[in-house]
Amino acid sequence: MCSPEVAKVVSERIAREGRPQFSRRNFLRLGGVAAAGLAVASSVPVRVTRAQEVTQLVDLTHVFGTNVPTYVPTDTPSRETTVTVKDNGFYIQRWSFGEHTSTHVDIPAHFVEGAETVDQYAPELLVSPAVVIDISAKAAEDPNAMLTADDIAAWESANGEIPAGALVCMYSGWESKWNDVAAFRGDAGDGKLNFPGFGPDAAQFLLEERDIHGIAVDTLSIDPGNSTTFDVHVAVLSAGKYGVEGVANLSQLIGKQATVVVGVPRWEEGSGGPCRMLAMVS
Amino acid sequence: MCSPEVAKVVSERIAREGRPQFSRRNFLRLGGVAAAGLAVASSVPVRVTRAQEVTQLVDLTHVFGTNVPTYVPTDTPSRETTVTVKDNGFYIQRWSFGEHTSTHVDIPAHFVEGAETVDQYAPELLVSPAVVIDISAKAAEDPNAMLTADDIAAWESANGEIPAGALVCMYSGWESKWNDVAAFRGDAGDGKLNFPGFGPDAAQFLLEERDIHGIAVDTLSIDPGNSTTFDVHVAVLSAGKYGVEGVANLSQLIGKQATVVVGVPRWEEGSGGPCRMLAMVS
Repeated sequence: MCSPEVAKVVSERIAREGRPQFSRRNFLRLGGVAAAGLAVASSVPVRVTRAQEVTQLVDLTHVFGTNVPTYVPTDTPSRETTVTVKDNGFYIQRWSFGEHTSTHVDIPAHFVEGAETVDQYAPELLVSPAVVIDISAKAAEDPNAMLTADDIAAWESANGEIPAGALVCMYSGWESKWNDVAAFRGDAGDGKLNFPGFGPDAAQFLLEERDIHGIAVDTLSIDPGNSTTFDVHVAVLSAGKYGVEGVANLSQLIGKQATVVVGVPRWEEGSGGPCRMLAMVS
Repeated sequence: MCSPEVAKVVSERIAREGRPQFSRRNFLRLGGVAAAGLAVASSVPVRVTRAQEVTQLVDLTHVFGTNVPTYVPTDTPSRETTVTVKDNGFYIQRWSFGEHTSTHVDIPAHFVEGAETVDQYAPELLVSPAVVIDISAKAAEDPNAMLTADDIAAWESANGEIPAGALVCMYSGWESKWNDVAAFRGDAGDGKLNFPGFGPDAAQFLLEERDIHGIAVDTLSIDPGNSTTFDVHVAVLSAGKYGVEGVANLSQLIGKQATVVVGVPRWEEGSGGPCRMLAMVS
């Protein structure tokens, strides 16, 4: 996520408060897999749901196309066909895009200088038990609705404590607007963005009181659209966790046990990037 | 995979023998998930290993960088930094590349006009029990060594029949050459390519006698480097199956039970594309 306005606000915040400190302990914990090229042994445990059998696969990924909504309009992808089956015997396209487009990952280096890039990030953190918290009722009333610590408490009251290594996902119902760029961005014509996101209190609770891998949203940003301080980005990425934005089909996981795989290519020195997100439901 | 020479050979082959026929039965089987945008119900079963617990994650993916070996030299990626944490408060890169670069998928539309593109392809086929067949001994002697039907018979004699929905992977040891582009391409300076791949007899056996999802290699192509007829591409993709090329760390799966997830973004009308490939070992 970015825009000139975001740049200004974040720069001012950092000038005022100093840069977020990337956790050295976390860096060391993940350091075993930081080498480029072939994988090396990692001390990060693998977390999956306890259920024994996979009964269904849910694709949580939107098509990566040239008309997808983006936080920054200039990040829109382009593609060209370089060879065709008819003329050349085979078919290939060439792509150009910014890393924060369509269903994609935000990795710590997106906001934290010197933090891990996506090619270095521990793959074990990309496989997680899914927790989906439904805030669609209040999002229908307030486009900048936030998933709060109270929403998490209500979810835990009904479902038990969020499991270790969870990817905590906000379902706001926003995916139904995906094919209408202005509606998905919540731009009423004044250039301002309006869509649901995580509240800072929810992020703080998950980072301090639970052992999560990351958070995910069905909107353009893990912060709500009207945020000017980007507290959730700063908190989550500074803690070495990640975000997934523009997730599809989360309603299909509500009330189910699922292990989610965030299949993000190892974009070299990447701040994140487009991914395939699949849920194995049991 | 492609090059002007490949284009010529494939075009001549198609002129001589006609275009491969894409299986209508297979198309109908997969048709339920062909809609762009949100997922719909699919009749494709989910296949995983029978083992109950995941004990290790193996990353089968090379870094997607600007110096990776490619079949077509002009497919090499480029990247530029558009904003930085220091100057803008956050960091993003913009990428440009051909779809068949680094660890990537070949989808039926790569060789078969009118066949499925990657955004349409059934996600269930991207989750598979892994079978890794080690031909590194003969690949050390012959750079164009082929994984043959006899190699499959030997593997099955030791391990039992290839399970339904398998991704059958060739381990040739070629990944050790990844950081040396000329060596990985097997180009001795004459522009010709030399590296191991599947033999046509092995592809025919897997397509006719076993129920596979796809095949994978640790080299640049599912056909060996000196192939001029691309029999394996034509056979596998015409059957609605897929290939994964440039896979890393396959030796870590030999003798183990693993479920592999091929996390390829849903590149719009894509012939395939870069992916994250992760193995959950039990």
